[in-house]
Amino acid sequence: MAGMDMRTRRGLATLRQIHGRAGIEVLDTLARTAPELSRFVIAFAFGDIYARPQLSLRDRQLATVASVATLGHALPQLKSHINGALNLGITKTEIIELLMQMAVYAGFPAAINAIGVAADVFAERHAAKEPKRAARSPQQTTGRRRPRAQKHSALRGRGKSP
Amino acid sequence: MAGMDMRTRRGLATLRQIHGRAGIEVLDTLARTAPELSRFVIAFAFGDIYARPQLSLRDRQLATVASVATLGHALPQLKSHINGALNLGITKTEIIELLMQMAVYAGFPAAINAIGVAADVFAERHAAKEPKRAARSPQQTTGRRRPRAQKHSALRGRGKSP
Amino acid sequence: MAGMDMRTRRGLATLRQIHGRAGIEVLDTLARTAPELSRFVIAFAFGDIYARPQLSLRDRQLATVASVATLGHALPQLKSHINGALNLGITKTEIIELLMQMAVYAGFPAAINAIGVAADVFAERHAAKEPKRAARSPQQTTGRRRPRAQKHSALRGRGKSP
Amino acid sequence: MAGMDMRTRRGLATLRQIHGRAGIEVLDTLARTAPELSRFVIAFAFGDIYARPQLSLRDRQLATVASVATLGHALPQLKSHINGALNLGITKTEIIELLMQMAVYAGFPAAINAIGVAADVFAERHAAKEPKRAARSPQQTTGRRRPRAQKHSALRGRGKSP
Amino acid sequence: MAGMDMRTRRGLATLRQIHGRAGIEVLDTLARTAPELSRFVIAFAFGDIYARPQLSLRDRQLATVASVATLGHALPQLKSHINGALNLGITKTEIIELLMQMAVYAGFPAAINAIGVAADVFAERHAAKEPKRAARSPQQTTGRRRPRAQKHSALRGRGKSP
Amino acid sequence: MAGMDMRTRRGLATLRQIHGRAGIEVLDTLARTAPELSRFVIAFAFGDIYARPQLSLRDRQLATVASVATLGHALPQLKSHINGALNLGITKTEIIELLMQMAVYAGFPAAINAIGVAADVFAERHAAKEPKRAARSPQQTTGRRRPRAQKHSALRGRGKSP
Repeated sequence: MAGMDMRTRRGLATLRQIHGRAGIEVLDTLARTAPELSRFVIAFAFGDIYARPQLSLRDRQLATVASVATLGHALPQLKSHINGALNLGITKTEIIELLMQMAVYAGFPAAINAIGVAADVFAERHAAKEPKRAARSPQQTTGRRRPRAQKHSALRGRGKSP
Repeated sequence: MAGMDMRTRRGLATLRQIHGRAGIEVLDTLARTAPELSRFVIAFAFGDIYARPQLSLRDRQLATVASVATLGHALPQLKSHINGALNLGITKTEIIELLMQMAVYAGFPAAINAIGVAADVFAERHAAKEPKRAARSPQQTTGRRRPRAQKHSALRGRGKSP
Repeated sequence: MAGMDMRTRRGLATLRQIHGRAGIEVLDTLARTAPELSRFVIAFAFGDIYARPQLSLRDRQLATVASVATLGHALPQLKSHINGALNLGITKTEIIELLMQMAVYAGFPAAINAIGVAADVFAERHAAKEPKRAARSPQQTTGRRRPRAQKHSALRGRGKSP
Repeated sequence: MAGMDMRTRRGLATLRQIHGRAGIEVLDTLARTAPELSRFVIAFAFGDIYARPQLSLRDRQLATVASVATLGHALPQLKSHINGALNLGITKTEIIELLMQMAVYAGFPAAINAIGVAADVFAERHAAKEPKRAARSPQQTTGRRRPRAQKHSALRGRGKSP
Repeated sequence: MAGMDMRTRRGLATLRQIHGRAGIEVLDTLARTAPELSRFVIAFAFGDIYARPQLSLRDRQLATVASVATLGHALPQLKSHINGALNLGITKTEIIELLMQMAVYAGFPAAINAIGVAADVFAERHAAKEPKRAARSPQQTTGRRRPRAQKHSALRGRGKSP
Repeated sequence: MAGMDMRTRRGLATLRQIHGRAGIEVLDTLARTAPELSRFVIAFAFGDIYARPQLSLRDRQLATVASVATLGHALPQLKSHINGALNLGITKTEIIELLMQMAVYAGFPAAINAIGVAADVFAERHAAKEPKRAARSPQQTTGRRRPRAQKHSALRGRGKSP
């Protein structure tokens, strides 16, 4: 990283901490068409904003997932940021809970589509983690398969949660 | 439906009346990732709101199609709601007319994309209704095929309306 | 109206039917800065779209109120269109019901702000209709005054509506 | 609260915890025009969603401020939710930091307008807390007054952060 | 400007070129609540983006006016950017023409509200330029006053423009 | 074009000038479901608005690309309009520069997704122009292929611009 300015160095470190190798790949794709914008994402968004210590990375990532889900049209970015949230230790349950709450502010369609993206992210990470079991029994990794017993889950009672 | 609370029961009845089996399937998919949100759609959106007698279901569905088309980013929901509108007896002509009017408020891109969704819904319902004729002559059900004679329809005179 | 083309004549007639004198005034204000846009509203929005017989004016106005409430940022237009809806015989109850439903698609903030606009429209029309009684007893026309007995209405039971 | 159903009771308790008396007042105003919507805010938004223990109230409020700032058109609600965030112990610094980050996702205009709302909230709470000093020296509570020394703050060096 | 980094210096120069003293004042107000965001506007928006020679300032400003008008909720920023466009020599006619075109993409309400903002900007600049005549005859500077002869302009024929 | 009214004739001429044969094809597809809307695009958007001489076609197209990129949800229209911009002689560099600037107003996700659309348009036009070389050496036309040497472009120094 010799020769990089401090903002870029700080930005890259923060980007890696939240998004890992996937974040670098997304920006490399962008850089083929708009190299400057890719640098601005690193130096400005991650180097100037996310790296500031005034708000924890966890809080920042929650706010970002909420904002991007609210936009409604930014599903590729929502996918990245749900992955980033999981990388920072925010749980699947917390992510679903936050996206559900977005129904109140951004409407049910935005919340439902965001939860569809979360389901894809969860399934991909599950598939990536269990390649061996998947090889033996592919159904276990599909994520979207609905076991018979769950069939009428939508119609069931509310359970115990308040 | 024993054991369900009244809101859920009322919501399911309204959901079925507008969306039929397709509505239940959409919510079952949602329920695999976010079961509570699925229940809120039934109990709140359909049980608390749509079931109220102060506005007819037809008027509610027109308003919903207008709102979801205006959002612009909620095409899967628009598809469901155009199907719901047809289920309630709103005609294809009325739906196209309403979506066209959205160009005035939400802009032409939102209106044009909404009409693309309507075209898909109309074609799918046409294909579902005529499986036999489709088997014999598949071109008749494609919906998107443009007969030679219509080729320059966009360039023709305005006709009689209005 | 001699010398006007047919679209403008048809548009003005439809505009008057929905918005009355207030509609002309809004467009005259616009015309001082952008006369062409004012003419396009008349000839295109009202002459080409609203005047088409394929959808009733009532249905068109419901769709417009839904769309403009969903936009969230177009409160002056929402005010005009709520007035237009009342002019066409859509009741206050139906308007409130429709705006309430928008919470499901556009989120609660958009719905709540739209209902604030509706409250203003209802109060203004009430004040305009009862100038004499208002002169004698100004409190009756404020619209926003909360009689003691209603004070805790937000906290009460759900009443009879489903 | 006798006679209220459990959702309403739970919602009111959560509403009071986040928004205090101001939350009840906002809903009472709404209830004069749309009493059912006011009840849905309590029973659904606060009783069904916010009261769920799967996400902390602090995290929920951060997500809500981010979402409402992203909408751009919901400044009255943003004001309520910034107050709610402060009530829950989220600091002014954290709120400004979160709103600044929204520039990345919702654009600079939305972020700048949100920070204008935050400035108003901070000034109002400051004025409310120091009524005596305000009485003696009104300039101290204006919040918008710029001391000479800060005049060129926008043009200064970046300081130490981060 | 000694001690400022190059991005800030370049940003300030570009900001002054487009927005003059008014731009600095807007950022000074922002800086009282969010000094870092104010610096980011200068160093990132104006120093990194606007200062790049790959697109002329005139083209950049047209694009910005179009974008901010499309957002719909950012009227204070629209006002600044219409002023900026005029400062760069873009004419009133071109600005009105561009905003009118936005009706096609962002809908008529966004375009009409944007034109209302343009009318205010034009009137303010007119009043600022002619303080003496204004002192003698205040009606000439109101901008919103409608001379009798223009009264029915909205209803007139289309004139000669295509 | 005999028998067409003047607005339609003027609109078709302007449409062809900006969008060529592709514009007619898009409207023919729309015309199969909503023939009137297709005619309104021609007569109103292109005949009434774009054909007006008060703003150059180049300026209009820059404004349209900015507006449609800001909407975020209108990617098919953005594709058409980027093609239209190239047809009018606006360079790839200028288009990327404009879309990059949209990050400031519409947020980074909208800008990044718009640049993805631009990359697709550039690649398609490159493939269409060089069918022979493509036949011999397919890698040259993929557009998305990243030569090894560019791999870390996102991480490099800022170079000389601006």
